[in-house]
Amino acid sequence: MKHTLAVLVENRPGVLMRVAGLFARRGYNIESLAVGPTENPSISRMTIVVEGDERTIEQVCKQLNKLIDVIKVSDITEDPHVGRELVLIKVNAEPQVRGEIMQIAEIFRARIVDVSRDTLIIEATGDEDKINAIENALRPFGIREMARTGKIALVRGARGKVLEAGLNGQETAIQTG
Amino acid sequence: MKHTLAVLVENRPGVLMRVAGLFARRGYNIESLAVGPTENPSISRMTIVVEGDERTIEQVCKQLNKLIDVIKVSDITEDPHVGRELVLIKVNAEPQVRGEIMQIAEIFRARIVDVSRDTLIIEATGDEDKINAIENALRPFGIREMARTGKIALVRGARGKVLEAGLNGQETAIQTG
Repeated sequence: MKHTLAVLVENRPGVLMRVAGLFARRGYNIESLAVGPTENPSISRMTIVVEGDERTIEQVCKQLNKLIDVIKVSDITEDPHVGRELVLIKVNAEPQVRGEIMQIAEIFRARIVDVSRDTLIIEATGDEDKINAIENALRPFGIREMARTGKIALVRGARGKVLEAGLNGQETAIQTG
Repeated sequence: MKHTLAVLVENRPGVLMRVAGLFARRGYNIESLAVGPTENPSISRMTIVVEGDERTIEQVCKQLNKLIDVIKVSDITEDPHVGRELVLIKVNAEPQVRGEIMQIAEIFRARIVDVSRDTLIIEATGDEDKINAIENALRPFGIREMARTGKIALVRGARGKVLEAGLNGQETAIQTG
């Protein structure tokens, strides 16, 4: 089963290597990994999708927690969460099929972000299934290049602490609103 | 100066560790890294944003090229390219400020993807500047959690080889169109 781990780490050189190394040495198969800054510039957030049974993943989480610079590991697989990835697809698009490709983009609420004489670049976001579906729909035209981020995810609802307090003005507005 | 590297690698365990290790050991500062599948399941594409002068980056590219499982490294910084990242932001949103936050989302063509009694999750895509701008616009309300992918990028125009040929039917349509 695929598990989604949200990992908060110190934004220091070497932390990515240590995390990737832990998976590599133990032969765990990372499906995808996305890393980016958080609201706090000294902290990065990694979202790791990894295949494994309950016990293996529990082990992975424990080992991650022991790594230097790892602040917090949460397995959010079972929590209701919003999971999204982003893809850019450069597809063959001679003028006579451009309309058809634009229709497909519209169906998936994707955006055309570049056009040349015989190619289009399409930007789409969604969960894994949706991204796979748009890729499949465009494949018959000939995909020239594709870049896909890993999944990022946030737990739905109010969980999660405030990383930075609101401005005073804003807080007042809330209190008196 | 920030450089954007597009790196094609074999999709094998350990490749991420080797790439991350190369940067860590040499003290190069990875700004962001996104890794995901390509049209060919045995090949992954990494987009790495790294700070450094022309000469340092040339060195990095040469060293990357020498790594096992690295197929191709391109510095696409100077090529016209589409660069995008994806962010999910969970922001405080008591009912009385929800309208204001929805306006901000609309201005940035972002999407509301979750709502609770006092929070919203917003999904936005764009270049680094746009993502920073939406983050700044939402900060006064109190950002609870944020997950951000690294940048992915494709060179504009027709460059890039066809990874998979079109279906016969489609090809015929193009030829006779």
